[in-house]
Amino acid sequence: MADPRFFRASGPFTVAEVAALTGAAIVGEGGERERILTDVAPLETAEPHHLSFLANHRYLDAFRASRAGAVLVHPKAVSAASDGVVLLTTTDPYMAFARASRAFYPPMPPQTGISVNAAIDPSASIGADVSIGHFAVIEAGVSVGPRSVIGPQSVIGAGVVIGEDCVIGANVTLSHAMLGSRVTVFPGARIGQDGFGFASDRSGHLRIPQLGRVVIGDDVEVGANTTIDRGAGPDTIIGAGAMIDNLVQIGHNTVIGRGCVIVAQAGMAGSTRLGDFVMLGGQVGVAGHLTIAPGTKIAAKSGVMRDIPDPTVVGGIPAVPMTQWLRQVATVARLVKKEEK
Amino acid sequence: MADPRFFRASGPFTVAEVAALTGAAIVGEGGERERILTDVAPLETAEPHHLSFLANHRYLDAFRASRAGAVLVHPKAVSAASDGVVLLTTTDPYMAFARASRAFYPPMPPQTGISVNAAIDPSASIGADVSIGHFAVIEAGVSVGPRSVIGPQSVIGAGVVIGEDCVIGANVTLSHAMLGSRVTVFPGARIGQDGFGFASDRSGHLRIPQLGRVVIGDDVEVGANTTIDRGAGPDTIIGAGAMIDNLVQIGHNTVIGRGCVIVAQAGMAGSTRLGDFVMLGGQVGVAGHLTIAPGTKIAAKSGVMRDIPDPTVVGGIPAVPMTQWLRQVATVARLVKKEEK
Amino acid sequence: MADPRFFRASGPFTVAEVAALTGAAIVGEGGERERILTDVAPLETAEPHHLSFLANHRYLDAFRASRAGAVLVHPKAVSAASDGVVLLTTTDPYMAFARASRAFYPPMPPQTGISVNAAIDPSASIGADVSIGHFAVIEAGVSVGPRSVIGPQSVIGAGVVIGEDCVIGANVTLSHAMLGSRVTVFPGARIGQDGFGFASDRSGHLRIPQLGRVVIGDDVEVGANTTIDRGAGPDTIIGAGAMIDNLVQIGHNTVIGRGCVIVAQAGMAGSTRLGDFVMLGGQVGVAGHLTIAPGTKIAAKSGVMRDIPDPTVVGGIPAVPMTQWLRQVATVARLVKKEEK
Repeated sequence: MADPRFFRASGPFTVAEVAALTGAAIVGEGGERERILTDVAPLETAEPHHLSFLANHRYLDAFRASRAGAVLVHPKAVSAASDGVVLLTTTDPYMAFARASRAFYPPMPPQTGISVNAAIDPSASIGADVSIGHFAVIEAGVSVGPRSVIGPQSVIGAGVVIGEDCVIGANVTLSHAMLGSRVTVFPGARIGQDGFGFASDRSGHLRIPQLGRVVIGDDVEVGANTTIDRGAGPDTIIGAGAMIDNLVQIGHNTVIGRGCVIVAQAGMAGSTRLGDFVMLGGQVGVAGHLTIAPGTKIAAKSGVMRDIPDPTVVGGIPAVPMTQWLRQVATVARLVKKEEK
Repeated sequence: MADPRFFRASGPFTVAEVAALTGAAIVGEGGERERILTDVAPLETAEPHHLSFLANHRYLDAFRASRAGAVLVHPKAVSAASDGVVLLTTTDPYMAFARASRAFYPPMPPQTGISVNAAIDPSASIGADVSIGHFAVIEAGVSVGPRSVIGPQSVIGAGVVIGEDCVIGANVTLSHAMLGSRVTVFPGARIGQDGFGFASDRSGHLRIPQLGRVVIGDDVEVGANTTIDRGAGPDTIIGAGAMIDNLVQIGHNTVIGRGCVIVAQAGMAGSTRLGDFVMLGGQVGVAGHLTIAPGTKIAAKSGVMRDIPDPTVVGGIPAVPMTQWLRQVATVARLVKKEEK
Repeated sequence: MADPRFFRASGPFTVAEVAALTGAAIVGEGGERERILTDVAPLETAEPHHLSFLANHRYLDAFRASRAGAVLVHPKAVSAASDGVVLLTTTDPYMAFARASRAFYPPMPPQTGISVNAAIDPSASIGADVSIGHFAVIEAGVSVGPRSVIGPQSVIGAGVVIGEDCVIGANVTLSHAMLGSRVTVFPGARIGQDGFGFASDRSGHLRIPQLGRVVIGDDVEVGANTTIDRGAGPDTIIGAGAMIDNLVQIGHNTVIGRGCVIVAQAGMAGSTRLGDFVMLGGQVGVAGHLTIAPGTKIAAKSGVMRDIPDPTVVGGIPAVPMTQWLRQVATVARLVKKEEK
C-alpha cells in the first residue's frame, strides 16, 4: 500500500467498477463482482483488498503466490492463478492497470496558489487557477495558461509561453520556448538555452547566435535534469505526446516526432529528425543531421551514424539491423572459442 | 526570421557591409553590393532580404531552392546557386556566417542590475555594472568582476572568484572555483563540488577530503547540467577557450587544454590530461590517469583506455586509430555474411 | 598546499601522530618521529613539511623526485624513495592517506543556522542545530534530523524524512523520500520524482501513477545532477554506504545493495537489483529487471543485458566475463591484421 505520508488513494472500487474502468472481463460468475478493492499494489505485497497486475513473465512466480484480491492478466495466464484471486482478463494488462491506477490515484498537481515570495514580472500573463511556487521567477512577457503549476525555484525566461494544465517541476529553467498543454517538466530540466554552435579556426572558437526556439507539443513529458537546446535558426521541436526520460540531451534543431519515447541518458546531436513513435533505448547516441523513419526502435547503448529510411529495429555501434547485430555478437564469441581450442 | 518575442536584430546591413564584416568576396559586379539584408535565416526559410549560408553538402538541395537574398558559400559551390541570389564566397562559410550573425545579433547578456531579493554577503566584492538575478546567493568573500551577470537562483560559494564579462546562467552552483574572463556557464551546471574520492576496505568507503579547486581559463563555455568536480589536491583545470557541451562529467584533477571541444554526455575520469584542441565526441568516455596528445579527435561513443601519445583520430571501445576501427567494423560484418552463406 | 581561500588545515601533526592515526610503521629510528607535518599534498607539489602518499605505480617517478617531508607507501616501494623523505609504510597507503587527510581537514559541513529567507512550512519538524540555506523550501510534514544541513535553493517536498548529520547541497530537489543518517547529496541531484512509467497503445502513452518512495540508507553519497526516480509501487532502495557519482540515472524500483560504487554517467533501468558491493564503471548501462550478484564488477561503458548470478568481472556490450571480452577485442584486431596482409 502506498505510503500515506506521500499518497492518498481515492477508492475504494468494486471489481465490477474496475472492470468497467479498464474494459477487462471478470473470470467467474459469483460474488467476485462486488469484492471491494481499496488500493493497487505489486503482486508480491498485494493484500486481499488490493488490485494487482501481471504484464511480464518474469513475475509469473509472484503471480502464483500472490495474495492479491484481484489481478489484471492476459487470458493466457489465467491458469497460473492462485486460489481466491479474482481475475480480470484483458489483452493489455499493463494499460488496464494504468487506467485503474489512475482511478485510485488521480493525477493531482499541487494547487498551492501563487507564492507571495515568487518574483513575477508585472507584464507576465498568468491564467486562472495557476500555482507558482516559492522563489520562482517569472520574467517579462511570460504567458502561463490556466491551471498550470510552476514549481518552486524555477525560472521562466522572458517571453516563454506555457499552455494549460502544464506541470513545471522545481528548479527548472525555461527560456526561448513555447509549450503546449498538459506538458510535464520534471525537476532540473533545462530547456531553451543556447545550442552548442560555434565556428572554429586556428585562433579558436566563435559562438554563433542561436536564434531558434524550443517548441513543445501537447502531452509531452521531459525528464529530470534533461537538457533541450533551442534551435540555431530553425526551431528545436518536440512532437505531441513524446515521453523523454531523465538526463537526455537534445541538441539544437532536433525534430522529435509525435509519441516518441526517449529513454534515460540518450542523446541526439543537432539537426536530427525522428519520425513519429520512434523509440530510443537508454544511453543511445544519434549523430547529427540524420533522418530516422517513424516507428524505428533503437536498442539501448546503440550509436546511430546513418539515416534509417525504413522502420527497423537496430542495435550496435555503429547501429545495424538488430538481427545482424545479434549475429555479429554471436560470430565474434564463436571465433574466440575457436581460437581457444 | 527570429521570433521577435525572444530576439531583436540590430541590422540591416548591405551586402557590401556583410562582405567587409566577413572577408567574403561578392560574386558579380552589379547592384548586388547595395542589396539590403535585414536578418539571417536558414536556407529553407530565408527570404529575399535575408542572409544565409551553405557549409554542409547535405543542404545543397536547399541551397538550390533557396529564396535567400544572399548566401555565404565556398567558391566550389557557386555553380549550384539559384538565380537572384547574391553569392558571397569564402573558404570558411560557417565562420563567415558566425561573424555576420554576431553583427545582426550581438551577444547581449541581460543587464538587469542587482535584484533586491538576492542574498549577497557583505564581504563579497561586486564589480561595476554587475547584474545579479532574483534569489541568487553570493557567499562570503566572493569576487565578481565588472559587467559579469549572475543568473537567478544561482549559488556562488564562499571565496569563488569570477572574472570580467562572465555570464553565469540560472540555477548554477559554483564553489571552490576561480573563473577567468568572458566565461559562460549554462543553467544547472555544477562546478567545484567534491570529487568522487574515497578509500575502501571491507568495512566500507572512507571519503578523502578534496582539497583542490576548479580553475577555468578565459572564454570557456560550460554546458547545461554539466558537472566539474574540484581537484583532490591538485586542481581541476579547464584551459582558455574550451567549449564544453551539456551533461558532461569532468572528474577531479582533470586537466583540459586550451580550445578543447567536449561534446554532450562525454565523461572523463579523474586525473586525465587533454592537450590543447583535443575533441571528444558525444558520449565518449576517457579512463583516469591518461594523457591525450594535443589535437587528438575521439569519435562519438568511444572508450579511451590508454594514453594517446600522438595526435590521432580514434574510435571504438577500446578506442583504436579510426581507420583500424572502421576495418574492425567491416571485418565483423563480412564474417557474419560469410557464415550466413 | 590547499588554497586558504577555501580550506583551513587543522594540524600540524608529528610523524608519530600520523603513524598512530593511520596504523602505518615509521621506517628508520631517528628523529623522524618528531618531524612536524603542517599539511597534506600530492607528491609533485609537496614540500618538506607536507605529508603525501604513493598508491599508484604511475606516480613512481614523482615519488622518486618528491620533496615531501613524509610519504605513506607500500613496504615494497620503500627502495624507490628519495633521500630525506620519512617513509610511513602500510599495506593500504590510500586508506592511510584518507585517515590522515581527514585529520588535517576534518569534514565540517557549514553550520550557518536557519536563513530568515527560507520558506519553511510550520508543520515541518526541524531538529537541533540544523542549518537551512537561503531560499530553501521545506514543505509540509518534512522531518529533518539534528545537525543536518539543507543547502540554499533546495526543495524538500512534503513528508520527506531526513536523518541526522545529513548534508543536502544547493539546488537539490527531494520528494517522496526517506533518508538515513550521514547521507550526502551533492548539488543538483533530483531524488523522488516520478519514474518513467506509462502504458502505450496506438493512441499514445498513458502515465501510470508512481506510488513508491526512494529509501536511502545511512552513509550514502549521491553525486551532482544525479537522478533517482521513486518506485512505481515497490520502493527504489539505496543500501547503506553506497557511493553514487555524478549524472547517474537510477530508474524506478531499482534496489542497490550496501556499499555499491556507481561511477559517473552510469544508468540502471527499472526494477534491477544490485547485490552488496557491486561496482559499476563510468557510463555503464544495466537493463531492467536484472539481478546482479554481490561483488560483481562491471567495466566502464559496458552494457549488461542479462542476470549475473555469480560475482564476476564483466565488460563489453553485451557484457561478458572480462577475460572473454578482452579475447574478443584481441581476436577482432588480429582478424583485421590478417586481412590486411
